[in-house]
Amino acid sequence: MKSIRSLLTLLTVALVSQTLYAQDPLPSWNDGPAKQAILAFVKEVIDKSDPKYVAPEERIATFDQDGTLWVEHPMYTQAMYCLERVPTLVEKKPELKKVEPFTTVLSGNREAMAKLTMKDLEKILAATLTGMSVDEFSAEAKKWLATAKHPRWERLYTDLVYQPMLEVMQYLRANEFKTYIVTGGGQDFVRVYAEKVYGIPPEQVVGTAGATKYGYEKDGKPFLTKEPKLLLNDNDAGKPEGIHLMIGRRPHAAFGNSTGDRQMLEYTAAGDGARLSMIVLHDDAKREYAYGPAQGLPDTKVGTFTQALYDEAKKDGWFVISMKNDWKLIFPFELGK
Amino acid sequence: MKSIRSLLTLLTVALVSQTLYAQDPLPSWNDGPAKQAILAFVKEVIDKSDPKYVAPEERIATFDQDGTLWVEHPMYTQAMYCLERVPTLVEKKPELKKVEPFTTVLSGNREAMAKLTMKDLEKILAATLTGMSVDEFSAEAKKWLATAKHPRWERLYTDLVYQPMLEVMQYLRANEFKTYIVTGGGQDFVRVYAEKVYGIPPEQVVGTAGATKYGYEKDGKPFLTKEPKLLLNDNDAGKPEGIHLMIGRRPHAAFGNSTGDRQMLEYTAAGDGARLSMIVLHDDAKREYAYGPAQGLPDTKVGTFTQALYDEAKKDGWFVISMKNDWKLIFPFELGK
Repeated sequence: MKSIRSLLTLLTVALVSQTLYAQDPLPSWNDGPAKQAILAFVKEVIDKSDPKYVAPEERIATFDQDGTLWVEHPMYTQAMYCLERVPTLVEKKPELKKVEPFTTVLSGNREAMAKLTMKDLEKILAATLTGMSVDEFSAEAKKWLATAKHPRWERLYTDLVYQPMLEVMQYLRANEFKTYIVTGGGQDFVRVYAEKVYGIPPEQVVGTAGATKYGYEKDGKPFLTKEPKLLLNDNDAGKPEGIHLMIGRRPHAAFGNSTGDRQMLEYTAAGDGARLSMIVLHDDAKREYAYGPAQGLPDTKVGTFTQALYDEAKKDGWFVISMKNDWKLIFPFELGK
Repeated sequence: MKSIRSLLTLLTVALVSQTLYAQDPLPSWNDGPAKQAILAFVKEVIDKSDPKYVAPEERIATFDQDGTLWVEHPMYTQAMYCLERVPTLVEKKPELKKVEPFTTVLSGNREAMAKLTMKDLEKILAATLTGMSVDEFSAEAKKWLATAKHPRWERLYTDLVYQPMLEVMQYLRANEFKTYIVTGGGQDFVRVYAEKVYGIPPEQVVGTAGATKYGYEKDGKPFLTKEPKLLLNDNDAGKPEGIHLMIGRRPHAAFGNSTGDRQMLEYTAAGDGARLSMIVLHDDAKREYAYGPAQGLPDTKVGTFTQALYDEAKKDGWFVISMKNDWKLIFPFELGK
């Protein structure tokens, strides 16, 4: 009897949540222009009698990652990974211990680290992201992501994804969209967790990508090595270029949060049929962060939402998502609280 | 009454063919080791109790195109396209009329054209495949493919696909595989017809790819221009490298026909779980062509199936598909004859 009752309870819960979902596919969004824009867009896309109808095979949606799908402050997660890999790297190659910028990173002196140049960072990226097989890299990144924690929330980085954006991705997929990540971050890094965290398979992750080199192990088994040679810088104009390379279709919806997403948002908005370009404004210092000149705040090194971007958004009919006003909650772990 | 009877007939035909298909998913294949290898592979992949079971999300199959999915003799179709584009190109840029190799191509002198060097061909490729927007290129290629005909069969090139391979692709997709084309041919060229001809969408076409450049039209509308800069040479080692870049997973099945596919076939065969690597041997001079040293025939410029490739196939457990012995028919237009 007990098991039948449990089953009935489960069924009821399932039915109720399904009904709730059917009523509101975006439950973590406050009612407002951003939410209405998403709902109106999907309505146009799927309505065959609407002149803006989009055939299912053309339903492509692209999402920037850092600052659009998960927290990018105080530093990009992948940059954190690279810095934290340096001690392990130096264990394997002790000669690097006395070589800059590795000496500074090993010192742990934050003030000195903040002064590292772009060229220093490139050296750290090349040393920690290349020179190993693609399988070794995946295994290392996976291991780090399972334990490393964000300094503010003391939670895994993969816990710090935005629940409202997960709902948008699910809603679009439920309406036959293929969802892609199009990130300035490393393609191989994001592929490690994108399926589990966002429901996006590796083949739908477009990112900054280096070359690989085919070779053979001693036993003749073939493998690919990650090379320090850039193939695709998936930022700015590199985003539509990367979309053409990897997808070959112009997206109908795109989501970003910084000047690095500008061209992707323009390219998406400029096509025929229903189009949706949206940018996330980080204006919630309490629940997340507030930054960017559009906020009347000083520019920061990451996630630059400039006044010019804000103006273009208004001019081109993109929608600005205010974290503070549009989102009921930020992270999945706040659900049911 | 007549329309009801027609409907009933249609329904009966549909049911019968569905039943036949269920009985034999590869009706254009003769019973033999190649057909049995495909059936045995799929059986392992989908059987959860089999140690070689493959989870649906990992079911990736890759197909070379020229010589594997369609005719590559007497010349790659895309090379034919480039040569036939030269007159139109010269109309727009008359200064090229007196410049080699364009003068030779315009002359129509086959003997002189056969002597063109690799460098000459590269100039023709760059001039006919780049310098226009990606949309212009697609429109031009589409127009050509709708009218240009193969000299031997006097049929559209897209009619000259191999029916037995279409059946393999359908059979794999029916078993939750994602099918990809991985071709040395131009990615943008193949994308123009892959969905219609093979049921493969643009985002599942991996090919030799050039860079594009983002820019704006006079009215501010953004577009992408095809640049004469090679990003991915999708031949030889470039095939597994391209697969990593574009798909990010090792395929479980791969199909090729030449030394340019060797590394893809090796890479596929070397992974865990069920694996299938197959090569098409062109040994049917009557119904298609016979070429390659493995045939005891002189080497040709295209589709080289060398003795070394044949030996590696035997050693590594790849399966050789004999067009002559394994295929009941070659082209879709022979069906029902």
